[in-house]
Amino acid sequence: MEYEEPLFFRVMEYAAHADGDIIDMVSGNPDWGSPPALAAGLHQYADTGGREFQYPPSEGLRELREEIAQRRQVDSDQVIVTNGAGEANYLAMGRALERGAGSEVVMTDPVYPYYPGKTNMLGGDQVYVETARDGRLDPADVREVVSEETACIMATTPNNPTGAVYGEDTMRELVAIAEEHDALLVSDEVYDHFDFSGHFTSALEFDSDHRVVVNAFSKSMAITGFRVGYCVAPPDHVGPMKSRHMLTNVATTRPGQAAVLHALTETGPAYYQENRQRLAERVETFTDALDDAGAEYTKPDGGFYVLARFPDFPGTLENTFELVDEAGVAGMPGSGFGTAREDWLRFALVTPRVEAAAQRLADYFADR
Amino acid sequence: MEYEEPLFFRVMEYAAHADGDIIDMVSGNPDWGSPPALAAGLHQYADTGGREFQYPPSEGLRELREEIAQRRQVDSDQVIVTNGAGEANYLAMGRALERGAGSEVVMTDPVYPYYPGKTNMLGGDQVYVETARDGRLDPADVREVVSEETACIMATTPNNPTGAVYGEDTMRELVAIAEEHDALLVSDEVYDHFDFSGHFTSALEFDSDHRVVVNAFSKSMAITGFRVGYCVAPPDHVGPMKSRHMLTNVATTRPGQAAVLHALTETGPAYYQENRQRLAERVETFTDALDDAGAEYTKPDGGFYVLARFPDFPGTLENTFELVDEAGVAGMPGSGFGTAREDWLRFALVTPRVEAAAQRLADYFADR
Repeated sequence: MEYEEPLFFRVMEYAAHADGDIIDMVSGNPDWGSPPALAAGLHQYADTGGREFQYPPSEGLRELREEIAQRRQVDSDQVIVTNGAGEANYLAMGRALERGAGSEVVMTDPVYPYYPGKTNMLGGDQVYVETARDGRLDPADVREVVSEETACIMATTPNNPTGAVYGEDTMRELVAIAEEHDALLVSDEVYDHFDFSGHFTSALEFDSDHRVVVNAFSKSMAITGFRVGYCVAPPDHVGPMKSRHMLTNVATTRPGQAAVLHALTETGPAYYQENRQRLAERVETFTDALDDAGAEYTKPDGGFYVLARFPDFPGTLENTFELVDEAGVAGMPGSGFGTAREDWLRFALVTPRVEAAAQRLADYFADR
Repeated sequence: MEYEEPLFFRVMEYAAHADGDIIDMVSGNPDWGSPPALAAGLHQYADTGGREFQYPPSEGLRELREEIAQRRQVDSDQVIVTNGAGEANYLAMGRALERGAGSEVVMTDPVYPYYPGKTNMLGGDQVYVETARDGRLDPADVREVVSEETACIMATTPNNPTGAVYGEDTMRELVAIAEEHDALLVSDEVYDHFDFSGHFTSALEFDSDHRVVVNAFSKSMAITGFRVGYCVAPPDHVGPMKSRHMLTNVATTRPGQAAVLHALTETGPAYYQENRQRLAERVETFTDALDDAGAEYTKPDGGFYVLARFPDFPGTLENTFELVDEAGVAGMPGSGFGTAREDWLRFALVTPRVEAAAQRLADYFADR
C-alpha cells in the first residue's frame, strides 16, 4: 500500500501558508460549536479518574449503546461504538469482504475518497456507478454492475460530495439488491441531521440481514476530533465486526464516549434544528451568489457541500491553488472525488462567510 | 473471521456476578491513579471547543509528536499517534504483511493473545517460539524458525504474561535477525516504565530500517480507557503506516491527545518511580505468600503480572472460575496465552490486596 497524502490535507496546508485572508471551505469541520452539554460531560468525566479512566467494554459503554439503541429503535446488541464513522465503515467493509462472498465493492462516482482507499487496504476491488448530474442514484444502474462478485455496496446519504439525499424508494431498492446478491449494503449516514429535503430515509427503516448503518457524532455535535461513531449491524455480522474492532483498536476512547453520552441525554432538538437551519440558509446565500457569478452548481438536498463548476476552469489541484492565491477562497478539487466531477470544485459551507466567498469567486471569474 | 469473546471479558464478567468479595487480578488496569496533570489537561481541553474540537492531524497533534520524539530521541516524522498500543501493533503488523515479504509472524509462546488474533485478521500465519521457563527468549531459537517467509517478529518487553525483560544482547540480536531476513521487528514496550531489573533495552537503541517500536500511555499514566499510544517507524515504513492509520481511524481522539500532552510536560519522574516501586513491592509480597502456599511461580523482572502454578490444578477456564467462587481471587487462565503455560494462572498485581489474595490462595490449596 503506497502512502498518498490525502488531498484535503494538501489543500489545507497550502491555504494555511498562503498570503492574505483565505476563506476556508476545504474540509467538513463544523464552525457552529458543540452543544454545551458536551464540554460539561467532558468536565464531569475528567473529575472521575481511577477505574473510570480504564478500558470501557470493547463494544462501547453500555449506557451509550443503550441510548443509541433506544433512539434508533434497535436492539443494543446490534450497536458497536467506534472510532468515528471512519472505523465503522472499515469494520463493515472488512466484514463484507472477509466472508468469501465476492471481492467487489460497489460505490458511486463521485465518491467519498476514503471508500476506494479502504477497499484497496482490505484487498477488494472497486466498481463504480455513475450518479445523475444532481447526484441522484438510480438503483437500476446499481443492478447493472452487481454480480456474484459483489461483496459490498456503499451508499452515503445525505451525500458527500453531491448533497443528494436518497429517498425511501431508493433505499428500499438498495437493500433489496444487497439481499438478492448476498452483498452488504453499508449506508453511511453521518450527515443525517442535515437533511433539508425532508426525504432522508435511513437504511434502518428496512429490516434486513444485509445492511449495516454507519453514523457518528462528529458532524451532528461538531466534534470531528473526538472520534466517536457507531454502527448498527445485523445479528449475523455484529460478532465478527466486534472482533475486528477489538483486534484493531481494543476499544473506543472513553472520555469521548462519556462526553457524547452526557450531551445526547442533555441536548434538546433545538440545537440540531438551529444548525440545520443555518446550513440551509448558507446554501441559499452561496448558490444565489454563484448564480450571479455565472457558475453551474448542484443545490444540495442535505449535507455540508456544494459542487460548483466555472467556465473553462476544471477542478484540478492546480486551479484549487489558483483560487486560494487569487480569489482568497479554498475549496476542494473535484478530481479528489473520482472521475465524474473533475471539472467541478467542492465548497464546504462551514464558515459564516459564504456570501463573501461567493462574491470573491464572482469577482475573480469576472476579471478572468 | 469468527467472533471469539476475549477470555478476559468472560472471566471479568464471571467475577462481577460471583457472590462475596472477589479480589480482581484479571486484567492490567492500573489501580494507582493517573498523574493529576492528566485530568487538569482534560479540563483545559474541555474549555476550548470550536476548532479545537475538530480533526487533529491524522498522524497526531504536532506538539505531542514533537514531545514524544524529543523524549525518545527520534525525528518527529517517525512518530504516529495511535488509538493505543492496540492500533500501533495493528499498523506495524499490517505493514509487515502487506510488503510481499512473507506471510509469517513469529511470536513467543506464551503469547499476548492479541498477536495471533491480529495475524489471522491480517491474513498472516503464526509461527511460535517457546521461551525458557523464566520467560527468557533465546535469539538462537528465533533463528531456528525464521525463513524467507518471515514478515514480522513480535517482541514484548517487559513481557506480558511472563514478566521477562529482554536485555541489550537479546534486543540487538532480534534487530539483526529482522535485518537478515527482511522482516520487521515489532517491539511492544508498553510496560517500559515498569522494569524492576534495570536491564530494559528499547529496540530504539538500535538504529535500523527493520524495527518498529510500539508504546502507549495506557499503563504509564494509568489511562487504559483513553486509547492514546504511538509507534516509532523507520522512514521506509512510516508513510504506509500513516496511510493505514488514516484509512482505519482517520485520526486518534483529540481530547485524549491533549490531556496526555499536558500530563507529559507537567509530570515529573517521581510519579513513575513511585508506581514502579509500588509494583515491585507487590511482586515481593505476592511471591513470598505464594512460597508459603507451595506454588511454583515466575518472578517477573518487569510488567504487571505473575504466572503461578499450583499442584494438580491446571490453568483452565473452569479452574479459574473455581478460584473465583471458592478462593475469592480472580486471575486469568494460562491457556489464554498459548500452549506453553496451560498449567499456569496469571495474576495482575493491580490491587493493593495482593497479600490477602495470596493468603486466600494458600488457604484454598491447604484445604484442598
